[in-house]
Amino acid sequence: MNIGILGTGVVGQTLGGALAELGHSIIIGTRDVAGTMAQEEPGVYGQPPFRVWLQQHPRVAPGTFADAARHGETIINATNGVGSLAAFDLAGASNFDGKIIIDISNPLDFSRGMPPTLAVSNTDSLGEQIQRAYPGARVVKTLNTVTASLMVNPRQLADGDHHIFVSGNDAAAKAQVCEWLAAWFGWKHIIDLGDITTARGTEMYLPLWLRLWGALGTGVFNIKIVK
Amino acid sequence: MNIGILGTGVVGQTLGGALAELGHSIIIGTRDVAGTMAQEEPGVYGQPPFRVWLQQHPRVAPGTFADAARHGETIINATNGVGSLAAFDLAGASNFDGKIIIDISNPLDFSRGMPPTLAVSNTDSLGEQIQRAYPGARVVKTLNTVTASLMVNPRQLADGDHHIFVSGNDAAAKAQVCEWLAAWFGWKHIIDLGDITTARGTEMYLPLWLRLWGALGTGVFNIKIVK
Repeated sequence: MNIGILGTGVVGQTLGGALAELGHSIIIGTRDVAGTMAQEEPGVYGQPPFRVWLQQHPRVAPGTFADAARHGETIINATNGVGSLAAFDLAGASNFDGKIIIDISNPLDFSRGMPPTLAVSNTDSLGEQIQRAYPGARVVKTLNTVTASLMVNPRQLADGDHHIFVSGNDAAAKAQVCEWLAAWFGWKHIIDLGDITTARGTEMYLPLWLRLWGALGTGVFNIKIVK
Repeated sequence: MNIGILGTGVVGQTLGGALAELGHSIIIGTRDVAGTMAQEEPGVYGQPPFRVWLQQHPRVAPGTFADAARHGETIINATNGVGSLAAFDLAGASNFDGKIIIDISNPLDFSRGMPPTLAVSNTDSLGEQIQRAYPGARVVKTLNTVTASLMVNPRQLADGDHHIFVSGNDAAAKAQVCEWLAAWFGWKHIIDLGDITTARGTEMYLPLWLRLWGALGTGVFNIKIVK
């Protein structure tokens, strides 16, 4: 399948690399292709510059946000949450019509220091903002509650015995994404929380996730719902 | 031990009943003792009127917020979160000095409809508000991430193989509360998230908890941290 990924950070790279290995055709989009390709510094998590990563992943092509959105039958939002709406705007509204958007982003606002606060929360969410801005798109919020390496490899922990969530207004789109999460990455336990307003729940889990990261000394953890 | 509980709702009743059975001396406080004792209607969760509950729990005495706070060597805040600061004000600041306050409340605001939003979140929390208002108190936020029956009986699920959290500025108070959670109720897995600002994490988990309640069809669930 042709997949467009918005965002060249760790999440975009991890998803892009995993999906390319599965045989999908990936364009990974950025605001400024030349600028991103010219970066020589390692990323914030010590990952190699994007140009080096691309050399290691020949099946992934770089492009603008619009290139990625046009290419994708499905689009993955892996941008920084506070920049997501601007990235979507650059990608062009018509490139989202009728497509499933897998929204992984969290509206983390680092401008007040660490740990980050949320730029939108409580009475709204980034998932809802994207769905409202692109009513023709089929937004499914998911994977935003785990670190990138777990998104594509849940078996890394307890043989996958922990949970991931989906939120969205389009039942068929959610069912399709659940199928992909299982087939692509091996997610065994997926909970449908309801419509896109339930993205408030998973986005507002981030403040707990961030404190757990601090307390546990690792981001490689997840929650299992025990009932 | 003498324990004062603020709040006569399901959380106050559940904690009060369990602690009285363990032999503690409990005063459970309310704004208007005569009014609360005169209630004939069942509670919002179908529980019997407070007067009937008290008859079934003869070791628990009713009183004002001030009576409960004066009585308690330790005080449990089981009020509705949006009314907590008003309840503390009625209880009298001097009754909190030097005491551990176990803060279980969540700032759920039902005024916008269901599911509730949070009256304070993101850049502040109810736990922090209480600690700021009563700097001489030793506030420990805990138990606010599970339904009342699980607070006092974690073994109800998976023999207790799931997690509870503590947040607070006073390390000795947190250690004491962890000891009590284990000894009183059998909590086996307690994570210290850090200072009282980490109460933002557990309070902001409530929006996810509320959607999980909807999706699972029960409030009797908890999260296990898998790492």
